[in-house]
Parts: sequence; structure tokens; C-alpha cells
Amino acid sequence: MSLRVAVVGCGTVGSQVVRLLTTQGDDLAARAGERLELVGVAERDPSRVTSLGVDASLVTDDAAGLVTRADIVVELIGGIEPARSLMLSAMASGASVVTANKALLAADGPTLYDAAAAAGVDLYYEAAVAGAIPVVRAVRESMMGDKVRRVLGIVNGTTNYVLDTMTTDRLDLDTAVADAQRLGYAEADPTADVEGYDAAAKAAILASLAFHTRVSLDDVSREGITGLTSDDVAWAERTGHVLKLLAVAERLDEGVSVRVHPALVPLAHPLAGVRGAFNAVFVESEAAGPLMFYGQGAGGVPTASAVLGDVVAAARHRVSGGRAPAESVYADLPVLSPEAAVSHFQIRLDVADKTGVLATVAAVHAAAGVSIESVRQTPGGDGLAHLVITTHAATEAARRATVAALTDLDVVDRVVSVIGVEGAEG
Amino acid sequence: MSLRVAVVGCGTVGSQVVRLLTTQGDDLAARAGERLELVGVAERDPSRVTSLGVDASLVTDDAAGLVTRADIVVELIGGIEPARSLMLSAMASGASVVTANKALLAADGPTLYDAAAAAGVDLYYEAAVAGAIPVVRAVRESMMGDKVRRVLGIVNGTTNYVLDTMTTDRLDLDTAVADAQRLGYAEADPTADVEGYDAAAKAAILASLAFHTRVSLDDVSREGITGLTSDDVAWAERTGHVLKLLAVAERLDEGVSVRVHPALVPLAHPLAGVRGAFNAVFVESEAAGPLMFYGQGAGGVPTASAVLGDVVAAARHRVSGGRAPAESVYADLPVLSPEAAVSHFQIRLDVADKTGVLATVAAVHAAAGVSIESVRQTPGGDGLAHLVITTHAATEAARRATVAALTDLDVVDRVVSVIGVEGAEG
Repeated sequence: MSLRVAVVGCGTVGSQVVRLLTTQGDDLAARAGERLELVGVAERDPSRVTSLGVDASLVTDDAAGLVTRADIVVELIGGIEPARSLMLSAMASGASVVTANKALLAADGPTLYDAAAAAGVDLYYEAAVAGAIPVVRAVRESMMGDKVRRVLGIVNGTTNYVLDTMTTDRLDLDTAVADAQRLGYAEADPTADVEGYDAAAKAAILASLAFHTRVSLDDVSREGITGLTSDDVAWAERTGHVLKLLAVAERLDEGVSVRVHPALVPLAHPLAGVRGAFNAVFVESEAAGPLMFYGQGAGGVPTASAVLGDVVAAARHRVSGGRAPAESVYADLPVLSPEAAVSHFQIRLDVADKTGVLATVAAVHAAAGVSIESVRQTPGGDGLAHLVITTHAATEAARRATVAALTDLDVVDRVVSVIGVEGAEG
Repeated sequence: MSLRVAVVGCGTVGSQVVRLLTTQGDDLAARAGERLELVGVAERDPSRVTSLGVDASLVTDDAAGLVTRADIVVELIGGIEPARSLMLSAMASGASVVTANKALLAADGPTLYDAAAAAGVDLYYEAAVAGAIPVVRAVRESMMGDKVRRVLGIVNGTTNYVLDTMTTDRLDLDTAVADAQRLGYAEADPTADVEGYDAAAKAAILASLAFHTRVSLDDVSREGITGLTSDDVAWAERTGHVLKLLAVAERLDEGVSVRVHPALVPLAHPLAGVRGAFNAVFVESEAAGPLMFYGQGAGGVPTASAVLGDVVAAARHRVSGGRAPAESVYADLPVLSPEAAVSHFQIRLDVADKTGVLATVAAVHAAAGVSIESVRQTPGGDGLAHLVITTHAATEAARRATVAALTDLDVVDRVVSVIGVEGAEG
């Protein structure tokens, strides 16, 4: 007996999955409880597959036919279609599905979860969030007896690399992005990364898992790193923070807030030490307290490792028999509008350098119901002073009202930047 | 229908498990797929249980009877007997078992794994290593498609707290231990923690999981933190390291090396930032690369969270039907003697402050086949100099030979300390 494994898509990750499946056969068989037999690879360019030592007879361009004659289908073509149709067809014909397709899960996860439940098969997607880091399984299985309060994730390695080099090597944003492109950390068109789209898809998946609620990409408010300057980085350091692009999923009294934005992280927070292109997900839950999962978020081999882990898990499940338990999307909490998000924030202002300005500025905060945690004033030249105000927790709505009122003040020359602070105490 | 859950032992962790089982019933039912019915708590002191609002009729002192009439048995009495007999009896009568018993798993894990496999039931023990941190599931399930090379763990919160306050507050060891005792981080008799016995048990469990090999407590070489001085801490800092008590499990060509000892960790390593009583486990594997899992390693509520996660996983497995897959202890690599362990190390020496000493010392290293990475020499007064030598990777046998030869040199006044360096590059 053996289990039939089909791989759809043989790009960076797929080729590593095929390589591991064919070279680690004995080890995988020992772990899975049965041999995993590669029954086909759907790929338009056969040389990509045959160059891995796979027999040409196993390569097909008929993905739709392939997925109905396997026990486990590994979907690695990405995008919405034909990936969705192939996965639905695979599950309908009784196959378990393993995927790394964050775009599809973020856009239409519930359709897939429902199909898996209806067919009684496993749908695993560890590699869709934070590459090699087993955070999906941790939240999905280990924390099943617990209630997650908040997830803070560095889930995009490109932007973390860019912000890290801006901090460490004092580069400006454009130079840092160009560096990342040269080193292969960023694509020629870096939009999906630097504008936060990639992180937003992962935020939707993490929020769905953590809160057992249907969260899609459209529910995620999103701000990328393209507005950040060397000055923002320098001020982050001066005030004891480091700038990170964070995916935030939070359970509030009224529902769930899910967002992606640049954030100031206090230096003592475990996320502050996540360097280079590494990823990390920080989870706060009621009973377990804070947990952090750290590792490589991208790359063919690390991502293939997560895919293989899922393949073995699905295989073991089939070997042991039994129906896959339904995905627990049972809570269906309301997903709140961006205005409901709550965080500390830091405003930097150029103001007139004269007595009484601080009182005026403080009054504006008070009127919006925003409590100030600290103020730092430095002379700026040209009759201006630079004010850095850090607030206690306030809603996004209150933050906007504050910024609007500050902009209207005669004594305020310019609101230089407004950045959320995440991971602060209190 | 519901699943019958029995809890054996109602101490710090057990009482939190019972509290969560009785107060989070609806949530747990949604996650497990069926209601979890607490059918009994075995505890000598009934008031511990009834004070949690549990009906007195559910409390029993007949643990042996209780474990045979449950679907899931949660063992939280600890120690070898009667815990082992109760777990074997529970599994023989068809119950899945969840335990936090690191002592028993380290001493006699294979007996339990075999019994679970024979009975076709689940045996889960997430809480036995690093409390709330889901590292057991990560290594056991997520990394099934990968090969682990090395595990470095800060798995004892007490010693991490002690070393952290020695570093941050410049305390000596005794004061730091007394502090930890006052704050409840250390027990009145701190031997199990400071001598590394607790960490060694967890190292044995982690090594068994990571290498699919039977590793017991007796296989773990162990050195605690009681030999460390404020001077060691200060020199760690001066050379860009921080002192940690590490559990190390490594796959070498000839087999597996498992040990617990104080180690110098480079400041840039993710483990260096693990502060206070927190735990973290750093796993290096072939495909996934480096991964780190961070969180609370002890405490009633965090540990209970890990136990509940296991209970829900076992429940889902029973609800979905099917036999539990056998634990994969299939590799059975040889466990190497302490002499085979390989690491960088740092030697501090008081030597005669005269020309030619460094050459003599270097020659001793070369004779033992140990390559020197760096040397730092500072005047020490009384005609002595202080030498800090950091080496490249060398076996423990070569390290011992080097130290013995150095001790015999006329120009060496004293070998002050020898500490391994873990997590260094190259």
C-alpha cells in the first residue's frame, strides 16, 4: 500500500517539495506510516520537473485530471483560479489538500474550509503564513483550549529586511528597497510587499484561525511602508522603539479588528529583535500568555519544509483512518471597521517655538479623549520646535479626530507623522 | 453524546485545568466537536476540588478506578509511581492520556509510547516541556517532513531568571537565587533547577522527539549553574555574549549528543534576548532552517493551557474516529558519550604576565587539535595577566585535554573557567 501524492505547480516551492518527496522516501514513509508515491506533477514546463530526476511520464499539463486520482494533492500554483477549482475538485473526489496559497485562502477561505468539511478531508495550509514557521498548527491545534486575545505578526520578510537596513545601515527607503531587490529579498515590482498586500492576506488567515471567524482580505485595513522616512526610523530609535510592519489581529469587546500598518515596537518587546528577512508571530492568549514563533518566512526550501510537514500530517491522518474534524469557524464574531482599532500612537509635529503651545496641543488631545503618555520637545530652528507625543490607548477614530484638530491649529506648522505603537504595556 | 474526562491530581496545574474544563464548557465543546464531561477528579484533599465549584461526588481518592472509566485521562500528579501505572491502566482500557509529567517521560517514555501504540490511543504531553509553548507539537507534527539538526533550549525559567538578574542587576549567584525564591520563581530547595536536573529531563524528551530515538535522563550529561560567578557573567558581556543554561540536543555524524550546561550565547542570537523566567526553544533543521518558540515555561494557568490544548486534540481525534498513529521512535540513533559533544568554548586563565606565554598557551591548544578563534589579554596585577581564549568547534574530549595540559603549565597560575559557546556561527 502507498498513498498517492500529486503536486500541482513546480516553481520555487514545488520543485523543492518534489525533490524532498523523491529523495527522502524512506524517512517520509517511516513518519507517515506508509510510502508516499508521487503519481504526477502538473506543470507547463516539463523540464522543470524532469531536471529533478522525475520520470517524464509523471509530468502532465492536465492538472484537472491529476487531482482526481490522488490521495493527497499539493497545490502550489497560487492565485485564485484555477487553484480554487482544482482544490474543490480534489476534495470532492476524496483527496486531502495541502496548499501554500495565501491569496486564495484570504480571498475565499471559507469556501475551501466548507468543502473540506463536507468531504471529510484535511485541508492544511501551514506554508501560507510565515513560511517555515509552524504558527498555523500552533494556533489551530495547540491553542484550541485557550482564547486568543491578540496576534502581532512580522509576516513579510521583504519589508522587515527593508526596515531593518533602514535602521541598522541608516539607508533611506528607496536605497533599502533597491538593496533588497539586488539581494533577492524583494521582487522587481515590490508593490505586494511594500504596500502591505501580502501581509494583509496573512493577517486575514491568522485572524480567521485565531478567532474562529470568517475574515477576508477586504476586512483588513492596510497601510504599507512607503510613507516612512529615515527620520521616522531615527525618531523610533530615539524614543526606544523600532519600526516594524505589523499584521495585527485583535479581539475587542465588540468584535475583531484586523489591520496591517507600520508600528513602533518597544525595544524590550520580543518582536523588536526580529532582524533581516526573518518572520515572527507573537500571540497573546488568556491562559497561555504571550507566545512567539520565529523563523524563515519565505524561500523555496523552508516553505517546502512546511508543505512536507502538512503532507505527512495528512498522510498519517489517512493511515490512521477516520474523518477529518471540521474546521472550527464557529464563532463568527463581527469584524470591526478600521475606526474601532485601538492602539497607543506617536505623533510628531512641527510647532511654533513659543510658550503655551504645549498647553494648546494637550488641550486638543484632551478634547478628543486621548490621554498623553509622554511629550518630548526639541528646538527645530526657523522659530519652530519639534514635538513628539506618545499617547495611551485610543481608538483610530479618536486618533483621526486628534490629528485633524491639530492640523487646524495656528501654532501647528505641520503634522510630520502619526504612527501606531504596538506591544506597549498598559 | 459527550466525552468523559478524568483528572488525576489537583495541584497548581490540575486546579486550573479543572477550572477551565468547568467554566469554558461551550467553547471547548465547539472546538472538540463534543462536550467534555468531567467525570471525576482524583485528589487526596477534596477541598482543593470542591473549592473550584466541583460537586463533591466527583472527587475520589480511587485514582485507579477513575482512570478506567474515562475517554481521556489527564495525569497531573507527577513523579514515577503511581503515575506510570495509572497511565498504563488508562491506556489499556482504551483512554487517551494527556500528561505534564516530564520526570516519567524522561525516565521511561518508551514504555508509555509503546503502550499508547499498542492500545491505539493518543498520548499527548505538550505541557511536559516548556509549559505553554507548543514546541512538542511543532517538532512532533510540523517538522515531520524535515530533519532536525540541533535543538537549543532555555527550558528552565528559574535558572534563566537567576542568570538574567545576575546580568542585569549585577547580583551574585546566591543573592539572585534568594531573590528568585522570594518572588516564587525558585523553590525552597532549588536543587532540581539550579543543578540542571529539570532541564535535563526536558532535554531527554526533546531529543527523543527531534531524533525519533529513545533518549532517557541517564543519557543526558548535565552541569548546573552553581559554579557560575559574577565574573563569568561580566566576562560574557565583555566578549559579546550572555550566559544561559541550555539544553542541547544535536545530531552528529555518529549519533546524538544530549546535554545541559551553562553556555555563552552570542548577543545577536535570538536566544540571547530571552529574559526573566521565559523559556524558548531554538530548533535548527535541514529544510526549515532556524525556528524559535518562545513563551512561559511554567505557572498553573499557562501550563493548564497546554494541557487543555492536548485534551481538545485528543477529543477531536476521538470524535473524528480512527486509530491514533504510532509514535515514531523508529530511528534509534546511538546516543553518544559526553566526550563526543562538539562546541566552541571559552577558557579564562590567570597566567604569568611575561613574553612568550601566549605562544606557549597557543601551542597547547594546537597540540590538542583545538583551533583558537580569538584571544584577549588584560593585565591582572601581582605579575599576572588574564587571558580569555575563545576556540572554534572542538570535541569535549579535546576540550578536556586542553584544560588538563594548560593546568600543568608553569606559566598558568589558574584555569578560572571553561564555558561552552552555543549558537555561534561556523
